[in-house]
Order: sequence, then C-alpha cells, then structure tokens
Amino acid sequence: MANFDLMRELALKQGGKILLLVMDGLGGLPREQGGLTELETARTPNMDRLAKEGSLGLSIPIERGVAPGSGPAHMALFGYDPLVYDIGRGVLEAIGIGLEVGAGDVAIRGNFATVDANGLITDRRAGRISTEEGEKRVELLKDIQIPGIEVEVKAGEGYRFALVMRGEGLNADVADTDPQATGVTPLPARAQSPAAERTAELANLWIAEAAKRLKGHEPANMVTLRGFATDPNLPKYSEVYKLNAACVAVYPMYKGVSRLVGMNVQQTGAHDTIADEFNQVASIWNDYDFVFCHVKYTDSRGEDGNFDAKVQVIEEVDRNLPILLGMNPDVVVITGDHSTPATYRAHSWHPVPTLLWAPGTHMTDYAESYGERACIQGALGQFYAKDLMPMALAHAKRLAKHGA
Amino acid sequence: MANFDLMRELALKQGGKILLLVMDGLGGLPREQGGLTELETARTPNMDRLAKEGSLGLSIPIERGVAPGSGPAHMALFGYDPLVYDIGRGVLEAIGIGLEVGAGDVAIRGNFATVDANGLITDRRAGRISTEEGEKRVELLKDIQIPGIEVEVKAGEGYRFALVMRGEGLNADVADTDPQATGVTPLPARAQSPAAERTAELANLWIAEAAKRLKGHEPANMVTLRGFATDPNLPKYSEVYKLNAACVAVYPMYKGVSRLVGMNVQQTGAHDTIADEFNQVASIWNDYDFVFCHVKYTDSRGEDGNFDAKVQVIEEVDRNLPILLGMNPDVVVITGDHSTPATYRAHSWHPVPTLLWAPGTHMTDYAESYGERACIQGALGQFYAKDLMPMALAHAKRLAKHGA
Repeated sequence: MANFDLMRELALKQGGKILLLVMDGLGGLPREQGGLTELETARTPNMDRLAKEGSLGLSIPIERGVAPGSGPAHMALFGYDPLVYDIGRGVLEAIGIGLEVGAGDVAIRGNFATVDANGLITDRRAGRISTEEGEKRVELLKDIQIPGIEVEVKAGEGYRFALVMRGEGLNADVADTDPQATGVTPLPARAQSPAAERTAELANLWIAEAAKRLKGHEPANMVTLRGFATDPNLPKYSEVYKLNAACVAVYPMYKGVSRLVGMNVQQTGAHDTIADEFNQVASIWNDYDFVFCHVKYTDSRGEDGNFDAKVQVIEEVDRNLPILLGMNPDVVVITGDHSTPATYRAHSWHPVPTLLWAPGTHMTDYAESYGERACIQGALGQFYAKDLMPMALAHAKRLAKHGA
Repeated sequence: MANFDLMRELALKQGGKILLLVMDGLGGLPREQGGLTELETARTPNMDRLAKEGSLGLSIPIERGVAPGSGPAHMALFGYDPLVYDIGRGVLEAIGIGLEVGAGDVAIRGNFATVDANGLITDRRAGRISTEEGEKRVELLKDIQIPGIEVEVKAGEGYRFALVMRGEGLNADVADTDPQATGVTPLPARAQSPAAERTAELANLWIAEAAKRLKGHEPANMVTLRGFATDPNLPKYSEVYKLNAACVAVYPMYKGVSRLVGMNVQQTGAHDTIADEFNQVASIWNDYDFVFCHVKYTDSRGEDGNFDAKVQVIEEVDRNLPILLGMNPDVVVITGDHSTPATYRAHSWHPVPTLLWAPGTHMTDYAESYGERACIQGALGQFYAKDLMPMALAHAKRLAKHGA
C-alpha cells in the first residue's frame, strides 16, 4: 500500500509525543433545523482553547456517504485504509468480546439457533435469548475437546458467541454453516480450498459435540458458525510508524483492534470513568511515543438517541482534559471514529469533527471553538481518516522530507 | 471498481426518494474582477432557502483542472468514475443524436468529406456543410442494405452523422478510416483484432455503397468513419444502487447516457420549457425512487457567452422549483455537470456549485444563499462528482453501515 510505503520511508525514531483522544461517535446533528449539534451545544472551554490555537477539520471515515462500523472506523483512524485492510468478521466479533486472536488462529462468529426434532432450523436466533441465557449455553460448550487444537469460546450479546481455534495449520477459508434460512438443516462447515479442509473437519467435530450438549436446551439447542477469519497480520505501529504505542480503552473491541496494530493494550476496568482512563494515560505517558485513548459513551448516548446525555459526556471529557494536557503532549488529536447523531440513533456517514493541536507546528484557522461548523471551515479541510496519522506524525516532527 | 462493490454491498431497497436536478454548465465566473458569478447574480429565493437549510459544496467532475465533455461529466454525476467507465466516442455521438445503442451494437461517428477524381481527400469536413445539407446526404444513405446486419444512420450537426450496426457477432475493435490528412485516400476499415474482421468487412461494404450514392453530391461526396465503439455494458442503477430511476431531459445525449445506466427515460418534446420538464417530473414522481432532471439552457447560454441570459435561465429554474418541492422529495440535489462560465464561452474545469438538501440528515453550514463563494465554505467541502451518488443515497437512508 502506497501510504505505508511512504510512512516506512519517512518515519523517524525520534520526535514529539502524540496523544490521540477518540470520542466514539463524536459527530452529531442539530436537534432541529437551524439548531446546534451535540458538540456545539456542549460547554467545552478546554477544547475551545485548543481549537482556537490549533487546526480543525472534518474526517471522512471510509468514503463519502458511508457509515462505518467501529472496526473499519478505527482502522482508518490508525492509518490503515479500511477498504484494503479488512479485518474478518469472525476476528472483529472475537476481539469485540475480549478473545485474543493471534497469528494463525481462526476466529468465528457463532449464533445459537433452534432446531426441531428433524434438525430443521425453526429460529436462526434461538428466540433472541438474553445474554444471560446465552452465557449459560456457552458454559456447556467451554470444555469441548477437539484433538490437536485448542478451542476457546465466549458469550457475546444475546444469542451470539465467538470461537477461536488455535493450533498448527489452521485456515479460515471455510464457508458459513448458517444457511440464512429456516426449514432447512444447518450446513456442514465446508472448506472453500484444500488448505482449509482440516479446519472444516475440526469445526464439524466441535459443532457435533455442541449439538449433543445443547440437546434439550431449547430454544438454543443448536449453533451455526459464520465469518471464519484469521489474524489479518496487519503491519505494526513499530514497523510502519516507528512508534512505541499504547492503548487505553474500556471496551474489548477497541482494545482488540489496537492489539492487532501492535499497540500495548493497558489493563482497564469495565466501569472506569473518563477520569480513570485519563489518569491511566498520564501514568504511562513517559513510557510511550503515542497513546490512543478511547471514550465510548459519546457513541452509546448517541445510539440511545439521548442528545443531552451525549452533550454531558463531551463536557465530562472537557472537564477532565487538564489531566491529559498536564502531560505536556507535543501533539494532541481529538476526534471521533465516526458520527453518531442522537437524532439518528445510529452510526452515520457525516464527516467527523477533528481537532489537531501542536504548538509550533499547527496551522491556525478562524475557528474560535470546537464544533461541526467551525470544523467545516478549518485548516485541515475535509480529509480521509486514514490520512490523520501521517498528519499527526508530521506535527510531531516524526516524518522526514520525501525526495530531494 | 471498489466504489461500486461498496455500493452493491450497502445499498438498500428501501429509503427516501431522491431528486437530482442538473443545470448543465451551472458553474460560472464573475464578468469582471470582484463581481458576481451568474449563479450569485441570479435572484433565487427558493434555492437560497434550501442552501440555508442544507449543505453546500463544490464538485470536481473528473480531476482538478480538467474540463469535461457532457458524457464523462454525467457519468461522474451518476457515480461512475469517468476515468474507469469510458463510453466510446461512437456511442456518445450516436446517443447524442438520438440513436439507440443496445448490447452488441457497434456505434460509429461519421464525417462527410470531399474527395477529388482520384479519390484523394481535399476536405475532411466537406466544406463544413450545413446540418440541412448533411441531412439531405444522410437521406441517400438510409436504406443501404448490408447482408446479415441492420444499419441505422442519422444526421448530426453539419458534416457529422452517426451509424449504428446491429446484428450477431459484431466487434468494435476497428481502426478509424479517417486518415486525419488531405491529399490521401480514406483508409479502409481495418480490424485491430481477429474478432473484428467481419465487422470491418461489413463497414467497408457500407462505405463502398455510400461512396457510390454520394458521387456527384459535392462537396459531401465521401464518408469517413471514426470511433467504432460498442455498448459499454455499464452496471445499472437497479443493480448497483437498488434504485428504480427515471430521467427527464430534453437533449438526446442526456437521455442516452441515462439509458446506458438503466434509467427509465421519459418522452419529452424538443421544445419543452423548464416548467414542462418539472411538471413531467412531478407526474412520474410516485413511480420512482430517483428522478434525474436535466436543464440544458444554462450551458447553452454560457457557451453563447451570454451572461445575462444564463442568469435568466437560473432564475427560471428557481421560479419553477416549487413544482418539484411540492412533491416533497426526501433528498434534493441541485448541481451542474461542469462549469460553463459565460466569460469563457466553453466548458471549464472550475468545480461545480452543489446543493444537498435532506431535512433531518443534512449537515448545516454557514451558507445563506446558493452561489460559488457560499459553496467554497459549505459542509460538503470539495469532492469528486462520482461521490455525489453515495452521499445522496446516504441522506436518503438508503445505505447500510459498512462493517461491524
């Protein structure tokens, strides 16, 4: 990929220290025509000061008009063209619920389903059982032994779970067993190329044993497997950017993607506050060139459709920002991975407010505060999210000149 | 092409209804330094209201600095990368004068030329005969019979005409017969690959018969053929975007390109007014997800160099806009295919003012009216025209999320 070739050529081992603060789903829309967005509404004196001093812009996560999932959106923020570096669904699901996926592992999404006495699927989602019910079924499957490999299984939300197969010679080129229909039996795991035949056989052994153990546990008395995928073997931050990088995040998905690009993922608690996260960043700041800090709840409140609560999360970030600024970072990037307007209650395609602050190197624009409309007119313009990392490195004086 | 793969993955069958109103050659320049452009001069209260509520931006038809013809410019507006999806010149010429080009047909541009008694070309454009004289010559050629295929010929402007060959096994890989020089004979049609040999032979039969019939009809006593091309077999709107789309346009070229992408082209009269066109859009609105409406005369008056007349066309569009807004479209896009500044009297490369209005989903910017300078600061930024369709679909909630 041209972008990384250039980074490998230009990235320097020395330079300033970079903080990437991501408020998930940051971008928003006004509640009513002519009104203010969540970010424009929030009282954010610290971010406004950085905005006034630094550069604003809008980032396009994937392509114009395309709303991204969290996986591809973070890949883009990390500098990986999300249409080139595609993390398989099985891997995203697995890392999203906290399973580790290493080199050579095969990760798979699982669904609980209901089958009748003849083995025909009557419900592909097992009556949408609760997460608690799903966890009980997963307990039944945890110690299934398959010869020659290790299998780890973990419950996801509701009827979902994920599976990681670990061992020699595994291959993810296996078709889904979910027939995407009811009234038929699940499909056997079938290799789509000779190299995957053993993996398909092992998956079928696991499915057969799972079916036996789930018998009588209606409505979740069967499993289907989808999205067989392997560690995408991504170029690592240390190799591409020459950065020693760390991740402070609360949700497994963001930890997982960070691990895939070679960040050192910090231990956090599921109930850590924003202040807790920021204090953890501060505590490790001396050990790294680059720290990615992820705040989840802007997205969550946007998905809830709760405009005011999203505003409050943004204000909480701003109130705690002095913890991060107290580290004296050379470059601060504050952005989102995508927009989640509360009016929209979902990820959207709208370009994402981005703030880049790097005293001595940032361009100044006319912005007086951090908000969508200010970003429209900012010095960074509209850019693809995958170009953010080169900009951050440049502002940290970590990129050499290209050509003579 | 990655973009269409993404559209095929994400496009939904359900969603809002989209109106794409194209004022051909909309973009302009001030008459004098510091003045207003045509669009800025025009009194457009309806468009100004939409601009104030919605998002503005500037579209780049092909590449920065590149002035496009109408064919590639519309391909881009329709979402087809014009540097990837190249419609052959013969096809553009043929559809531009109203010939249909179907799958397997070969379309060719023809010129009338003058040859002397020895068959040497003395004028490659037959003394630039009038369209009326050209039409008379075409009458002589209309019923030429070629064994095994059907040939349709139609007069264009002046010394130009177009030809469509229809039948089994045709192939457009045939070199031009126009030697691009005088004092030499026209070249025979020559196949550039074995599969095109029969087509070249059939073309030579047609040329020989045409030469016989034109004998004595100086100055147009010979023909040359150029730009052999076949139906480009473009992905269709229904397949790529899952849109049931219609086209309301007066000029054959725009109808032709619309037909090539699978729009249902409506019957119009050559002398339809803007109000007639808008009323036709309204009359079919219930039957389609997407309607493309093309206004030609902004471009025509720009090409004439008539600034005031171009302003008047824009004002006429605005006056009649309530006909379209009365349909309550979910998404309205008002743009041009390229700029045709009256001061320039030709298509130009200047990025094109674009207005996107979609209550509930559009971003708001600081624009108070629709004009070039307002667009520079708009929420859409500067974007490639090929990205307009994904944005329109997104605003109509017709695109699913990409990735998890």
